[in-house]
Amino acid sequence: MPSPILLVTSLEPAEEAAWRAALVEAMPGETLLGATESGHVESGAAPSAEIAIVANPPPGALAGLPALRWVHSLWAGVDRLVLDETLPPVPVVRLVDPALAGAMAEAVAAAVLHLHRDLPRYAEQQRQGLWRQHAVRPARERHVTLLGMGEMGSAAAKLLQAIGFTVQGWSRSGTARDGVPVLSGPESWARALACTDILVNLLPLTVETRGLLDREAFARLPRGAALVNYGRGAHVVEGDLIEALDAGVLSHAILDVFETEPLPRGHRLWSHPGVTILPHVAAPTTLASAAAIVAATVRAFRETGRVPAGIDRARGY
Amino acid sequence: MPSPILLVTSLEPAEEAAWRAALVEAMPGETLLGATESGHVESGAAPSAEIAIVANPPPGALAGLPALRWVHSLWAGVDRLVLDETLPPVPVVRLVDPALAGAMAEAVAAAVLHLHRDLPRYAEQQRQGLWRQHAVRPARERHVTLLGMGEMGSAAAKLLQAIGFTVQGWSRSGTARDGVPVLSGPESWARALACTDILVNLLPLTVETRGLLDREAFARLPRGAALVNYGRGAHVVEGDLIEALDAGVLSHAILDVFETEPLPRGHRLWSHPGVTILPHVAAPTTLASAAAIVAATVRAFRETGRVPAGIDRARGY
Repeated sequence: MPSPILLVTSLEPAEEAAWRAALVEAMPGETLLGATESGHVESGAAPSAEIAIVANPPPGALAGLPALRWVHSLWAGVDRLVLDETLPPVPVVRLVDPALAGAMAEAVAAAVLHLHRDLPRYAEQQRQGLWRQHAVRPARERHVTLLGMGEMGSAAAKLLQAIGFTVQGWSRSGTARDGVPVLSGPESWARALACTDILVNLLPLTVETRGLLDREAFARLPRGAALVNYGRGAHVVEGDLIEALDAGVLSHAILDVFETEPLPRGHRLWSHPGVTILPHVAAPTTLASAAAIVAATVRAFRETGRVPAGIDRARGY
Repeated sequence: MPSPILLVTSLEPAEEAAWRAALVEAMPGETLLGATESGHVESGAAPSAEIAIVANPPPGALAGLPALRWVHSLWAGVDRLVLDETLPPVPVVRLVDPALAGAMAEAVAAAVLHLHRDLPRYAEQQRQGLWRQHAVRPARERHVTLLGMGEMGSAAAKLLQAIGFTVQGWSRSGTARDGVPVLSGPESWARALACTDILVNLLPLTVETRGLLDREAFARLPRGAALVNYGRGAHVVEGDLIEALDAGVLSHAILDVFETEPLPRGHRLWSHPGVTILPHVAAPTTLASAAAIVAATVRAFRETGRVPAGIDRARGY
């Protein structure tokens, strides 16, 4: 009988129960142990667990598990997880789900077309009862830059190109994918921003990308450019963003992620006229699809005994 | 020397002057006569004019021109023009501009993605400072029906398919185009609506399509479906639309066209929470591209002496 698997999350009880059910259904031969509300794993069989499946586990929850060999995150973003210094030095697998990339591509297309067709301005005009037409440009005259060209960025770039936008990517490693030109590294950062009408952030949050979208970055964009943040809240220096919007350096920002989520009541971003707030809904993990992917990784481990390849923890993704 | 061409519009003087300049540039060998402010054409050379170029000409403006052989509209929609009973029985050419079809396809994609990703609901939540996530469905699970499958409808359908939506068309003649299934005629109307999540109207306004989107049509849609109207205001029975929105039969309507444009100040649609108002900006005619198309038609007439084929005036487009 295989060793038990730990499920450790900081989700609401109902949500964790839904995940548990999906995972049990996807891995009928496995035993799934849970954590108590304090985040400590159930006693008894836990010390023999070789695998932990996690979703924002409370810091310290995975410390002191002698048999632990690898960890699978139910999220694609593992920035909080790798910052936990008590996390044992075992491979951390993050969720790479083609369904997520498809959902993200649709979210990017919705946001970019929203900005491209001036919908924030027309919403404001509607509030004022104002009928005023603004020039329509074709998509090919709109330059969109995607920050981050992994699974999600590539899917988004491909879809934006199919719609007709002029698209480029920027990423750490920077190789062209599917005919999308990709600029690479800090030395091309200024060049990437200089020709960008709509900037879409899909980067992972790492030591290097934290606070990347600041006053200096906004000043490098053509005046009146727009921002879409589907990465993490901490990519953006919030004070700088508000200053750039108020000064007309940026025309609008669509924000799906925030330093603190849910965005606190009364936070100044809620009511800023230059900001569209979305409650972290760009590419939600879906139970069935994510559980099937986790189950396949577990099955391969059981069959081969080989620990799956994890992320580069120094790099952060 | 060729006979002069009449330019007759009801545009603002500055806008008419811009059109005149674009047309003169596109047809350097031609003489372009204008109309006075009352809509009557300039005296003198006018009786010899064989061609009139028009944009919503005042009713009666084209009556009594003995040499008139054909009329070219600068707009794609000619519903007002053909309702003018004083219009001489000469061919009426409407603008068919591939650039317009591209702009319309982008406008349709923006509206459909806006509804698909729940952006009206999140805008309302932002006004309330409310953080609440709603389930994300993939585009392929969203059924979009396009009413009207001419140049614009086909371009829109193709783009929606590329994004991933499940698309069908409905039109009078009804033949499948570019792999988009097309239902045809009144007998398939109920069937087309029954499986529609998002209904996009691009029909020409004719005796048969006026008031087509009424209480009965809305009731045939699945409860909570959404409407996009990029056709004409008179396609929609406004009282029935508001009733359907208030009752939850429809979840939202994006309206770009209205019975009276500009939409009058204080009109109840401006402030209806279930309505997004756009000021007729889906696919504005662009001067240079439209002038080039008109010039090519004029040139062919001058070279061959053959009057171009016009619309079917009984059909209305």
